[in-house]
Amino acid sequence: MSLLAVGSVAFDDLETPAGVREHLLGGSASYFSLSASRFNPVQVVAVVGEDFGAAEEAVFAGRPIDLSGLVRQSGLSFHWKGCYGQDMNEAKTLETHLNVFADFHPDLPQAFRKAPYLFLGNIDPRLQREVLDQMEARPRWVALDTMNFWIEGSLKPLLDVLKDVDILLINETESRLLTGERNLVKAGERIRILGPRIVVIKRGEHGALLLTEEGAYACPAMPLREVIDPTGAGDTFAGGFLGHLAAKGDLEFNTLKQAMVMGTLMASFTVGQFGVEGLQFLQDGQMAERLQSFSSMIHVDGL
Amino acid sequence: MSLLAVGSVAFDDLETPAGVREHLLGGSASYFSLSASRFNPVQVVAVVGEDFGAAEEAVFAGRPIDLSGLVRQSGLSFHWKGCYGQDMNEAKTLETHLNVFADFHPDLPQAFRKAPYLFLGNIDPRLQREVLDQMEARPRWVALDTMNFWIEGSLKPLLDVLKDVDILLINETESRLLTGERNLVKAGERIRILGPRIVVIKRGEHGALLLTEEGAYACPAMPLREVIDPTGAGDTFAGGFLGHLAAKGDLEFNTLKQAMVMGTLMASFTVGQFGVEGLQFLQDGQMAERLQSFSSMIHVDGL
Repeated sequence: MSLLAVGSVAFDDLETPAGVREHLLGGSASYFSLSASRFNPVQVVAVVGEDFGAAEEAVFAGRPIDLSGLVRQSGLSFHWKGCYGQDMNEAKTLETHLNVFADFHPDLPQAFRKAPYLFLGNIDPRLQREVLDQMEARPRWVALDTMNFWIEGSLKPLLDVLKDVDILLINETESRLLTGERNLVKAGERIRILGPRIVVIKRGEHGALLLTEEGAYACPAMPLREVIDPTGAGDTFAGGFLGHLAAKGDLEFNTLKQAMVMGTLMASFTVGQFGVEGLQFLQDGQMAERLQSFSSMIHVDGL
Repeated sequence: MSLLAVGSVAFDDLETPAGVREHLLGGSASYFSLSASRFNPVQVVAVVGEDFGAAEEAVFAGRPIDLSGLVRQSGLSFHWKGCYGQDMNEAKTLETHLNVFADFHPDLPQAFRKAPYLFLGNIDPRLQREVLDQMEARPRWVALDTMNFWIEGSLKPLLDVLKDVDILLINETESRLLTGERNLVKAGERIRILGPRIVVIKRGEHGALLLTEEGAYACPAMPLREVIDPTGAGDTFAGGFLGHLAAKGDLEFNTLKQAMVMGTLMASFTVGQFGVEGLQFLQDGQMAERLQSFSSMIHVDGL
């Protein structure tokens, strides 16, 4: 049962306290699909330019990632340049070149329009709406990610699409911007009024918070000795979270909690290396081992 | 088996987004003992002025809190005035009047000098050393809390006393100040070299991190819909944490994890009301209920 994801495929230039890298494969759809595909087949809808070639395609090879929705256009792919200070919680954007992304309007392949699970990655909410409208039937669930840029500049179309969303993934600062509430439990309540009945607030190195009508779950981040590059951590979290939900096929509260752990697990690999390397070269054994160690960490005996 | 605590008893004037309060009973030893005494008997060493009367004493009544180490001096008690903005993670100090605390030198009652468990609350590290030196035998464990003021102004005496400490409780910012390390796992490693083999880094609304040679445990804060006054949350956490350890009598890793939960539990009551009210009027049933709900929150089935 495929998980359809729409988002960006990009090239990133990055500077973090750990070093400088240029022309790294990035973008929300890249991180998301590499993460989610460890749990469930993923169909990707995105646009790339002529600079996306065999080397980039190879990154996705050998995983259940269907790239037939990847539109190739003349010109260059989306390009982002950013840097991080010692506090790696927030990126500073230095340059954004939309390139082929500027005039992108998703046109879903016929086979994608029946997907039971849909992730609307962080793009213009008008495009998120276009994708939703192309689905033949309402998916079993729709998840959405967004950012300050759209909250500040495209609030109306964002609120419009949110009405039809089940799961919102959003970071802490953005949740406050969207709701005007500093308290995250109250921010979650306000968001639930806007549409999504399941809210996941991503807090970077402080973990993530799940807020539903049934209750809250605060999932700590994995304590890491080394953070190399936080780019894509949120999309990777979304991939682990939604990949697990798609694989399980239900939205029970405990399944959501498991999914929070899977998102946390996957994000811990992304931040450990530059770009998508932490996901690209991840062995199943490493995943199992770290899951075991995280599960054992969060479990407290005899309470 | 008593837990001996040295610290401050104070009167606080507070302004938080929830309101303004004057002349509230506060101080590290007050919060600590009201919290720890829910788990284990506590002996308090501190100094108060003439403004500490029957009403204040009554706050501690009916709990296993031995106030025979409370020195009464002429003059006024320690007085702190502070405020919090919307971001309640950091207090802004407006006024500090040491008053009777200025010339305080602890002189432990004979009966206190045999205590098997010792908490050196956040006071001048030279006084912390004086207390330690008055113990008849080395306690089974010694825990210490400190703050930026001592790290910046009294580093040498602080490092001197840390050599003889088993457990350091410190907040996130202060752990970075003490070690020069932004990464908390590495900060914990550096602190372990200074003496304490068990490090607890308090992160306010983001929870707390336990770092030992055996491993790390990230404990989330309880998601709360309302935070009224964060004053004393750290001392309350220390009380729940160390009170549980004293009651259990061992420092096994799982006992330390349980203690992290107890610290988190107690702190959630403190921040829910002004001053010590959240602890003072806390019913056993409320404690049990919230512990149950927190335990159930952090537990994830079927991982």
